[in-house]
Parts: sequence; structure tokens; C-alpha cells
Amino acid sequence: MTDGARDRADELDRGDPLAGFRDEFLPSGDVLAYLDGNSLGRPPRAAAERLAAFVADEWAGRLIRGWTDGWLDWPQTLGDRLGRAVLGAAAGQVVVADSTTVLLYKLARAAVDARPGRTRIVLDTDNFPTDRYVLAGVAAERGLHLDWIETDPAEGIRPEQVAAAVGPDTALVSFSHVAYRSGWIADAAAITRIAHDAGALTLWDLSHSGGSVEVALDDWGADLAAGCTYKYLNGGPGAPAYAYVRAGLDVRQPIRGWLGTAEPFAMGPEHVPAPGARALISGTPPILGMVPLAASLDLIERAGIAAIRAKSLRLTGYALDLADAWLAPLGVTVAGPRDDARRGGHLMLRRPGFERVLAPLYERGVIPDYRRPDGIRVGLSPLSTSFREVHDGLAALRDLLARTPA
Amino acid sequence: MTDGARDRADELDRGDPLAGFRDEFLPSGDVLAYLDGNSLGRPPRAAAERLAAFVADEWAGRLIRGWTDGWLDWPQTLGDRLGRAVLGAAAGQVVVADSTTVLLYKLARAAVDARPGRTRIVLDTDNFPTDRYVLAGVAAERGLHLDWIETDPAEGIRPEQVAAAVGPDTALVSFSHVAYRSGWIADAAAITRIAHDAGALTLWDLSHSGGSVEVALDDWGADLAAGCTYKYLNGGPGAPAYAYVRAGLDVRQPIRGWLGTAEPFAMGPEHVPAPGARALISGTPPILGMVPLAASLDLIERAGIAAIRAKSLRLTGYALDLADAWLAPLGVTVAGPRDDARRGGHLMLRRPGFERVLAPLYERGVIPDYRRPDGIRVGLSPLSTSFREVHDGLAALRDLLARTPA
Repeated sequence: MTDGARDRADELDRGDPLAGFRDEFLPSGDVLAYLDGNSLGRPPRAAAERLAAFVADEWAGRLIRGWTDGWLDWPQTLGDRLGRAVLGAAAGQVVVADSTTVLLYKLARAAVDARPGRTRIVLDTDNFPTDRYVLAGVAAERGLHLDWIETDPAEGIRPEQVAAAVGPDTALVSFSHVAYRSGWIADAAAITRIAHDAGALTLWDLSHSGGSVEVALDDWGADLAAGCTYKYLNGGPGAPAYAYVRAGLDVRQPIRGWLGTAEPFAMGPEHVPAPGARALISGTPPILGMVPLAASLDLIERAGIAAIRAKSLRLTGYALDLADAWLAPLGVTVAGPRDDARRGGHLMLRRPGFERVLAPLYERGVIPDYRRPDGIRVGLSPLSTSFREVHDGLAALRDLLARTPA
Repeated sequence: MTDGARDRADELDRGDPLAGFRDEFLPSGDVLAYLDGNSLGRPPRAAAERLAAFVADEWAGRLIRGWTDGWLDWPQTLGDRLGRAVLGAAAGQVVVADSTTVLLYKLARAAVDARPGRTRIVLDTDNFPTDRYVLAGVAAERGLHLDWIETDPAEGIRPEQVAAAVGPDTALVSFSHVAYRSGWIADAAAITRIAHDAGALTLWDLSHSGGSVEVALDDWGADLAAGCTYKYLNGGPGAPAYAYVRAGLDVRQPIRGWLGTAEPFAMGPEHVPAPGARALISGTPPILGMVPLAASLDLIERAGIAAIRAKSLRLTGYALDLADAWLAPLGVTVAGPRDDARRGGHLMLRRPGFERVLAPLYERGVIPDYRRPDGIRVGLSPLSTSFREVHDGLAALRDLLARTPA
């Protein structure tokens, strides 16, 4: 069966219009199948070249002059590129800065402070720990109440759950667009309408969607969003994050540095916030850390997010086929959506005993993501992952599971 | 006069035990004299090599495994190296993370929350804008009062001013160790004693001291500190910052991410902070952005901070001699301390009309730092700056000023 299946994988690779992009990423010597692009994306080849050129030509070559030559604008110019290519956001609403956690904190604080008198935040039990911790922390310090929606861990947040949770006291609703465990894509447009009907603001975590599924912040009418750039956006370990603030929404975030002011070099006595999304900037922007992201955006812009999403669906669809054929008989369940409309860029597979196959999988060069207690996430980064990799990775998993009691 | 003076510069370079370190930094084609190492340090040669190796061997080579191979510990291992080599801090008290602004915010919030019932923050009018904005923002959101000390902009904060400002309601005193304008070194040990006698905590901004003057956080008995790594620590534009929390001081900072918890991979319902300085971490650490700092720390550890400080004093002393001989007759004043004990790594020169010589100075490859309305800062990074550079830079300034009416 394996040989025929491998032929099919190769056929899918031959028919893949984005196949050529795989060569744009650096190889990993001992890796047969990288199934964790949703945790850390591979490096674009150009990232290494860009970093070397940046150090020699810009940092060494321009020294302090680099700031006025352009670095000061990078958070916005890269943000605008992200907005256009990935987030469905017109210019002026996105900045690259800080980490996702810090930006979520700033945005959550800005949101609840922009809805004075409202006392509740709606969130869900299955959001990523950082999101839950940040929102709980903001609620605690501002004296607000948390309304927890119990989500099905194999699915995700549904509009009707949000409709039942919001009310006239809701200041903010905040969810992940793609659930980090199940891969469920929330209906962000519907949820945003429901939040707005209640007079609340929305804050979306796009970490698991940006670069793999289509995001349409402007069309959704979203208020605030943040996400990381080291997953499907291939920005590198700990690369800076991004944040979106809807045009016209007046935000006042709490971490006030000189570079988020309207006129930084005035260095005046008061912090006068810059207009728009630039007000989200606090300290000196992490310029060097943005260099690989610029290289990755070149690739994403060239491929186009619609083609990336189409390949993502083909990859996860193929992985579903193999899971059904090979893994289900071994006790594996797919703990996530099957439907194209709700299926993000990764699959969650569950089976007791997964922990025991992790080390031998790694030894064979198959790298998925393990989630306690019994989950393996298969994250398929569209530009850098081949169907052959999916085949080889799941075949190795099948062979190991066949020898591992549940 | 120039020729004899240049001979003297060359003689000083020949006698400089750290002269060899200049070759450890990448050259800048068109730069004759870089006098702004206190704004952005030059790149260590090894930074480019390390970045290339990091991308190929660690990011591409290890992929997600890099986190458990070591990246997760980088904030603390680099922090410990900084603590030992630069900050006078024993292990376990320093982390590398975020930006200086974000860390100042976290530390200021942690400090005032650790002194409940106390209602005042003591700060000074001449601190860097970000420090003032952050402290004013924290005071506003926590309902605290600011006690402003009026500092002499040509000097800095004095212990007797602090003694007069603190009282039983003081929660926090916060200053820069080296003043960003005058270069004045505050007597941090004395000020810390005064703060502690009043029951207040101290928060030091070390951005202009770390890597150029001796810092002794443990000996001072300091509570909290933060600083940047892109000035004298040569970490690159927007490199991550560092923060210090005294061992035993229980801090609870407001930005709660999963990587600052005691057990990140438990992903539990509550944010349980990690012990010690690791509790300051919020989101995913900026690993790639730390790579040049590691290369720079190799150089600093090799040279030793005592030798670096000794050279810094020789460089600024030499620049003072030239300013007195060449620039004072042209109306330039030294707006900072002359005394070795109070003189940091940069000099502030003032003269009306400086703005007009800036462009021609740049054209000649002489790069100082301009500060409105009439200041030029001469920042002399000890490991990368030659006496010849100081000579050539100030000679160019002299020649231009001679033709430029005040």
C-alpha cells in the first residue's frame, strides 16, 4: 500500500502550482518530514542573505543613520505589507512590534479602557494559555469580570455561543481565529457582528491563521488583532509580532515610550500618542529581528494568499485521507474539523500513547508537535511542505503506532 | 597644531591595551569618525557569522527542536552572562527580553504593586522621555502621585535631592544611572540606601551605563533595573533589552504569557509565575535578535569591564582636552561632568548653531548625535573607538564651527 500511496503523494507534488517555493527554504539535514510549521516556520533562503547584507550594509554601513534612512518606518511598512498580503487590512492599521503577548496586553487594555463602564470580557476556555492569562490579568487589574465560553476542544468557538455570552456590560470579546489545538476556523465576521451589536469591541489572535488561511480584518469589521510571525510567516524564532487597530478607532495603550509619540524627537514633557496603529509602538522597534520576515513576505506576496490557502486545504485534506486509511485503524481520532470552511492549516490527532512514539518519530526525522496528554498536531506550512513529506511522516507514525499499544 | 595633535592620538592608540578589539568590529565604508556608539554600537564581526550559522544550523537545522535544545534558556543564560560581565549581578537575577520600554513598564508596575498603600513615585525631570512617560503612565493608571526632582541638565541626580524627595509614602524611586544628556553618573549606592531607608524600591535605567561604566547592582543593593543592548553592548538595532530583579524580591508583573509561568508546557488554567527573574518573561523570547549580543558579550568578557571603563575614561578625557583646546574658543561648552568619578561614556557639547554643522559633518563621515536645540553628544564606545577617530571627528567639528556663526 505504501508504494501506491507514495506515488499518489508524488503526483500531488507534481500537480502543485506552489511546488517551486519549497526550494526557497533552507534544507534541514536530518529532517524527513517537518510537520510543525505551525509552531516554527522554516527559514527562507533569502533570510540568511538578507541578514548578512543587513549587518554589513545597514548596521555597519549606515550605523545610526539607518534609523532616519528607513528603520523608523519599518514597523509600519512591514505592517502595511502584512496587512495587504496576509490580513486583509488597508494601509495604516498594522504595525510590527514586541511579542504577541505584549501586543495582546496592550490591545486588551486599550479595548477595555475604550469601553468605560462596561465590566465584562467574553473569552473561551480553549484559547491559547497566553491569551487566557493576558485577558485574566487585564480583568483582574481593571476589576472586570470574565465570561468564559466552554468550547468543544475538537471544534471551536461558534457564533451562537458568543451571542449567548455577550450583553450590555461586555467591553471586549477575544478569541483565536484558528484554534491552536483543533485547527477550527471561527466565523470571525459573524462573531464580530454579534459583538458590535452588543456594543463590544473584538480582539482576534491570528497566530495560527496569518499566512495559512484567508484573513479579512477590514471586511469582518474587526477592531483589534494581533499575531505572531514565526509560524506560517517564517519570521524566525521569537520574531516580532504584529497588531492591527481598525482605522478610526482611538486607542490609548498603557506602555508609553518615545517612539509611539506623534513627534518622538521633540522629547517633550508629555506622551502625546502617534495617530493610528503607530500608537501601539512602545520602545525601539526590533529591526534586526524583522529582516527574515521581509524575506518571507516576498515569497507570500509572490504566491498569493489565495493559492497558499488552496494548497493548505489540499495538504490537510491529503493528511486526513491518510489518517483515515492508516491511523484510524490504529486507534487515532481526528480531533478537529474536516469541513474545508472550518479547517485551518493544521490537524489535531489524538491517541493514548502518543508520548511514547515521539522520541522514535524524532529519530526518524519526523517532527510533529506533541500536545499533552494524547495529541499530535500535524502543521503543514503550505509554501515549504511537500505531499511527499506528509506521506513519509504519517507512514512513519503509522509504523510506530502499529508497534505501540495505546 | 593638527599634526602634533594627531601624533598624540596615534600615540594614545599605540598605548591602548584594547586597541586590538577594534578589528573585531565590521568597518563602515564612508565613516571617518563614529562618535555615536552610545546610540547604536557597531556590529561585532562575529555577529554576521553567528547569524548565518544560527539560520543554517539552528533555525533550519533544528527547527522546533531548537527550543528544547537551548533557546528556551537563552533569556536566562545571556542574562546571567550580562549580569556577571557587565552588571555586577549574580546568576538568576537577569533576563534578556522585550524592549527597554516594555521592561521598565513591567518593573515599575511590579514595584508599585509590591508597595501597596504607598502612593508616590520619585523621578527626575531630565530622565529619558520613555522613562518619564512610562512612570507617568503607571502613576496615572494606579492613581499615584509623581514627585519630580528638578535636575541640572548639565549634571544629574544627587543623593541629597533624593533624600529631600522621598518619604513614608514613596513606593518607588527611578532614575537613569548615567544621564542620557549630560553623561552624569549617579551615585547609585547612596541613592539606593536613601530609598531603602524610606522603605521604597529602586528602579534603575542602565541603558547608558551597561558596557561603558562599572555597574554593581548586587553591591548597590538595587531592587530592579533595565537597560538596552544596542548601545555599548553592540546588540544591533532594536536588539532585546535586559531586566534585573534582586534575588528574593517577589515580583508580579502584569503581562502574563505562558513562557513566564513556572511550568509552561502544563498550559494550565492559571498563570503561576516562574520563580525569580524568569517571571519577567511574557511571550516567546526574541531568539534571533539575541544572536549578535552573544557575539558582543564574548568581546566584553574577554576585555573585562574594568579595562573597558579605564579606556572609556581615557577616550572622554582626551575628547575633553580637545574640546578645551579647540572648541571652547569657538563658543562650545562642555555640558556635563569633568570628574572621572561622575563622567560616563559620552560627552555633551553645546553651542547655538550645532544644527547647521550636522549635515556637513555627516558629509565628512563624522557621525555624532545631535540633541535639540543646541547639543552634540560625543559617544565613545570603548572597544570600537580609536583615539584617532576622536581626533579626526573633533578636528572636523572645529573646522566647520570656525566657519559657522553661533
